Amino acid sequence: MLSRAEAGAAEAREALDLLYRRAGRGHVVGITGVPGSGKSTLVAKLIAAVLASGRKIGVVAIDPSSPFSGGSILGDRIRMGEVSGHPSVFVRSMATRGALGGLAHGTLEAVDVLDAAGYDMIFIETVGVGQDEVDVVRAAHTTVVVSAPGLGDDIQAIKAGILEIADVHAVSKGDKAEAEKTVMELKAMLGLALPAVGLKRAVPVIKTSSPRDEGIAELLGAIDAHREYLVTSGQYEERRQAIRERRMLKAAERLLHEEFERHRQGRMADLVAELAAGTVSPQAAARRLVAHIGMEVIP
Amino acid sequence: MLSRAEAGAAEAREALDLLYRRAGRGHVVGITGVPGSGKSTLVAKLIAAVLASGRKIGVVAIDPSSPFSGGSILGDRIRMGEVSGHPSVFVRSMATRGALGGLAHGTLEAVDVLDAAGYDMIFIETVGVGQDEVDVVRAAHTTVVVSAPGLGDDIQAIKAGILEIADVHAVSKGDKAEAEKTVMELKAMLGLALPAVGLKRAVPVIKTSSPRDEGIAELLGAIDAHREYLVTSGQYEERRQAIRERRMLKAAERLLHEEFERHRQGRMADLVAELAAGTVSPQAAARRLVAHIGMEVIP
Repeated sequence: MLSRAEAGAAEAREALDLLYRRAGRGHVVGITGVPGSGKSTLVAKLIAAVLASGRKIGVVAIDPSSPFSGGSILGDRIRMGEVSGHPSVFVRSMATRGALGGLAHGTLEAVDVLDAAGYDMIFIETVGVGQDEVDVVRAAHTTVVVSAPGLGDDIQAIKAGILEIADVHAVSKGDKAEAEKTVMELKAMLGLALPAVGLKRAVPVIKTSSPRDEGIAELLGAIDAHREYLVTSGQYEERRQAIRERRMLKAAERLLHEEFERHRQGRMADLVAELAAGTVSPQAAARRLVAHIGMEVIP
Repeated sequence: MLSRAEAGAAEAREALDLLYRRAGRGHVVGITGVPGSGKSTLVAKLIAAVLASGRKIGVVAIDPSSPFSGGSILGDRIRMGEVSGHPSVFVRSMATRGALGGLAHGTLEAVDVLDAAGYDMIFIETVGVGQDEVDVVRAAHTTVVVSAPGLGDDIQAIKAGILEIADVHAVSKGDKAEAEKTVMELKAMLGLALPAVGLKRAVPVIKTSSPRDEGIAELLGAIDAHREYLVTSGQYEERRQAIRERRMLKAAERLLHEEFERHRQGRMADLVAELAAGTVSPQAAARRLVAHIGMEVIP
């Protein structure tokens, strides 16, 4: 099913719809961080901690393949080490949609498959460079942003935009001397930011060290506490519904693109010609496009 | 008109459609580069060079406001210096759609307005962190990626994904000793990459120094040469049509989002309830959504 979801196989549509209805129990956790943040090693440790708590854990690792080498940008895929082969863990790597990022269409269906298969927690892991990150955050119940001490100011500037979307912050490489400084800086930024962006809750910043096994249990505790917080504050159902609606809108967008491609030389040919001649604006053409496709897909 | 385009004012729709039909002469150039690359200073120099060639130049500068400070992430807005107030230059700053980036809806309409007003060249300038960059590239006839010597490997990894989309590379801070190394590295990467990504043309890498006024004329020459290349190879019309179709699809996506928001408590309430109950999958809901909206917007 995962392969079919990834391939976007049409014949998998009905099965995926059935699986979707059986999904919904799992806690979906997005984990993102810039390359070099030590995120992959941290994720492997976190998986071990989830297993130690007696839960089953599924992982969808987003693999941004390089347009040049065809291989992973990071070169080092998730370091599963001690947890690989454990019967309660399942890891799936999926390629991104292309060089410009964004989740592959099958990613969230893959999460459904793992969820329906009874995994208690499902991680979506990205390298967090651009659109992937945004898409992952929008699909997860809980988002963890991993920062590393000593990454340059440019990186920090890039990350500034995503600070507000983290539910939990992890600072990796906690054994380094600068780690404490990074923790303090993050806390200071978040302290300033909380009122400004209307956050209602103090966002935890957890210092971790993968080689020393420090902070891992605390990080898992913070992730679990965030779900608990969502449930008790009544935001859990709200967030899940927002995810469902976004998935519907994304699927609708995809439908527009596919149907336009499919019919551009057929019944859309007039529209394409008018666009080329400049006699219709993109805005006006958009309304005609939606009307065309709407009439065609009436269920 | 620029203010109305930016505000997305409904009453501006018709006027923008009329302006769109008068646009299409200008050369739209997207310029992107990470924070700290010295891009803003380089753009100011480039504007002076365009003016010196006797052309009118419009600039739409995308300003990613910080979710925390409310101000610009970079802190330093475009340094217009010597060119500000020149009668043949017009600069407009526009905010991004939010912390997660992506062009504001009015950005491309603003380009139309400047184009229809007779500006020969229109720059769209971004800080190039994420979705903005992608959107800009997809809207421009020619894309310039600015790299700076000495930015870390992490930045380079992030940029790896966007290398293939540059039509012209500029290396800023050419007075620095490491600049030549950066030029060589870029050329080496591009040399490896050209066959791999099917590029048909050697992508120029221009070393520039803003304080020394070096490489600026060459950079403008490379930008002009790229348009010439597009025209003579027959790709110009192809690229313009791709931009028009993408704008149509983007506008159609926006229509879906707006209509869904508008009717979610009215005629879409059943769909929302079924999504919440889990009795319809996002995929199936998407078809119903498109059918609903399609019937409503029939022109």
